[in-house]
Amino acid sequence: MELIFLGTSSGSPTKSRNVSGLALKKVGARPWILIDCGEATQHRLLHTPLSLNNLHAICITHVHGDHCYGLPGLLASAAMAGRTAPLTIIGPAGLQGWIAATQQATHLTLPYSLHFIDVAALTGVVAMEGFNISALPLSHRVPSFGYEFVETGLPRKLDVAKLKADGIEPGPLWGRLQRGEVVTLANGRVLDGHDYQLAMRVPRKVIIGGDNDNPALLAECVHSANVLVHEATFTLAIANKVGPGPQHSSAMAIAQFAAEASVPNLILTHFSPRYKDGGPGISIRDIEQEARAHYGGKLFLARDLEVFHLNREGELSRMQDGSPAFAGMTAR
Amino acid sequence: MELIFLGTSSGSPTKSRNVSGLALKKVGARPWILIDCGEATQHRLLHTPLSLNNLHAICITHVHGDHCYGLPGLLASAAMAGRTAPLTIIGPAGLQGWIAATQQATHLTLPYSLHFIDVAALTGVVAMEGFNISALPLSHRVPSFGYEFVETGLPRKLDVAKLKADGIEPGPLWGRLQRGEVVTLANGRVLDGHDYQLAMRVPRKVIIGGDNDNPALLAECVHSANVLVHEATFTLAIANKVGPGPQHSSAMAIAQFAAEASVPNLILTHFSPRYKDGGPGISIRDIEQEARAHYGGKLFLARDLEVFHLNREGELSRMQDGSPAFAGMTAR
Repeated sequence: MELIFLGTSSGSPTKSRNVSGLALKKVGARPWILIDCGEATQHRLLHTPLSLNNLHAICITHVHGDHCYGLPGLLASAAMAGRTAPLTIIGPAGLQGWIAATQQATHLTLPYSLHFIDVAALTGVVAMEGFNISALPLSHRVPSFGYEFVETGLPRKLDVAKLKADGIEPGPLWGRLQRGEVVTLANGRVLDGHDYQLAMRVPRKVIIGGDNDNPALLAECVHSANVLVHEATFTLAIANKVGPGPQHSSAMAIAQFAAEASVPNLILTHFSPRYKDGGPGISIRDIEQEARAHYGGKLFLARDLEVFHLNREGELSRMQDGSPAFAGMTAR
Repeated sequence: MELIFLGTSSGSPTKSRNVSGLALKKVGARPWILIDCGEATQHRLLHTPLSLNNLHAICITHVHGDHCYGLPGLLASAAMAGRTAPLTIIGPAGLQGWIAATQQATHLTLPYSLHFIDVAALTGVVAMEGFNISALPLSHRVPSFGYEFVETGLPRKLDVAKLKADGIEPGPLWGRLQRGEVVTLANGRVLDGHDYQLAMRVPRKVIIGGDNDNPALLAECVHSANVLVHEATFTLAIANKVGPGPQHSSAMAIAQFAAEASVPNLILTHFSPRYKDGGPGISIRDIEQEARAHYGGKLFLARDLEVFHLNREGELSRMQDGSPAFAGMTAR
């Protein structure tokens, strides 16, 4: 699985960081999913190999502009790129009316349909190619959600022990069951292939949070996750100075939570523009140091256009420029 | 006067060109005016010395997304930058409702007021600091407008001949009249200083078109203009291939018009993304060659983050990197 960060700044863009946007896909697969779509997400995509024609779903965490103002332009550019396949948008219900109002006000006709799913009403999973998506309510100034992505389509093997226990003899029948077919035997007995398949490994699970001042809300879902992507807008000192209004997490808060929940891989993002990438004054390094002081797992602070690779063993690594995962990526 | 191009691509952004946005200001002055605000205009501004706190007016030519989808994010970032001064927006009436709908859907509160002016109902001039703005109806798929900017606040000198003809003797009174004061003489006679002022030079005039397939609509206003900025979306060959639907101007059409109207300086912009900046295949150079074949005046094809300088003698020049006009500009 691959995570490509398109924007890692909170509120406003900076010269080096755009507002929120994150792409998720399986390595080598064409379909991809976009989580949040701040303004100029489509501009960032121009520097990746991702095509708007292969975008299967957009998950919006909440309605604040730095997470959704890129939607109209991205939808328009997908239209100009000739997209005709329907597009799923999961997000707060208000987005649907806003997109419709935008289309009407700006005479935007889309040659493909939008399939809106109200995240607040979503109880089960949304099955997309390669992933099952579910929603996780969070705590912010406006309703905010995280998204859980569990991979699907894993290779499966036959449960030979069960076949033998059920008295089903080896033969061509086994091949049909392995392919998931439903087979009716000569004696009228019906066998469903899915009952005789075993997953060859545990599916990988990635959790991507929206803006959230209460990481504990993710406690239940996070215990079996391979990766947690979460905001760390401020260090604790600045969070206290800014006051309780913004309802964001400090680096300490999310790091402590991830440590207690034994999250193996933590990627922080959504940094206040006051944190610079270097030089004098407060910097992203301050957020990193605060997080490291409270979390001993594998910690990353995301940068724009960085690619992370989660292998089948659940190990997460930051890809280096020039690695195969960067094929099609252009200089930041 | 200074023109800073923020976006020169039509429809969708490319790696090197953003969608429409153009800043106009007087050299050395802080106030500036934005013409069109495509998505990521605020991102381009980060590479200029222009501050959202000094933005006095935004003129939107028409409602298509590549000319206005950057408004919500720019307004939000101005709020986050602490702006409190009212902001004038001149544009199609539908924009006002769209901005209001966007604010409501995305919980965007602005700590400054917006002063909307419906461009279709605008008959006189809008006086901003440094410029009088008027609107010019054009021809496009949706109502589209150009804007005429005539500089104001020129230094003035006393009309000595008129003073003498009116029997007003030299003295401290002349100084008050030069400052534009209204003066009542001992005999009850009232003199208005404005009646005794002479402009020291002809005010400069810049015309910035919106999308438009009929340059002749600008014939009346353009004859005294120093600069015409106009779209040249296609070469004639591609325009004919694309067909009449898009209602844009070819390079030939606008060049022929500018030649007939004796426009001294012509800047072309809004190029279809199919024209590359170099390499094999069709390129911006094709548009330039076609325009040069029909126009012998001073011709420029705008690039993003280029600065043009119109001096008091009405001469237009493209500023080179490193020149004083580029102070505060960062690498593209």
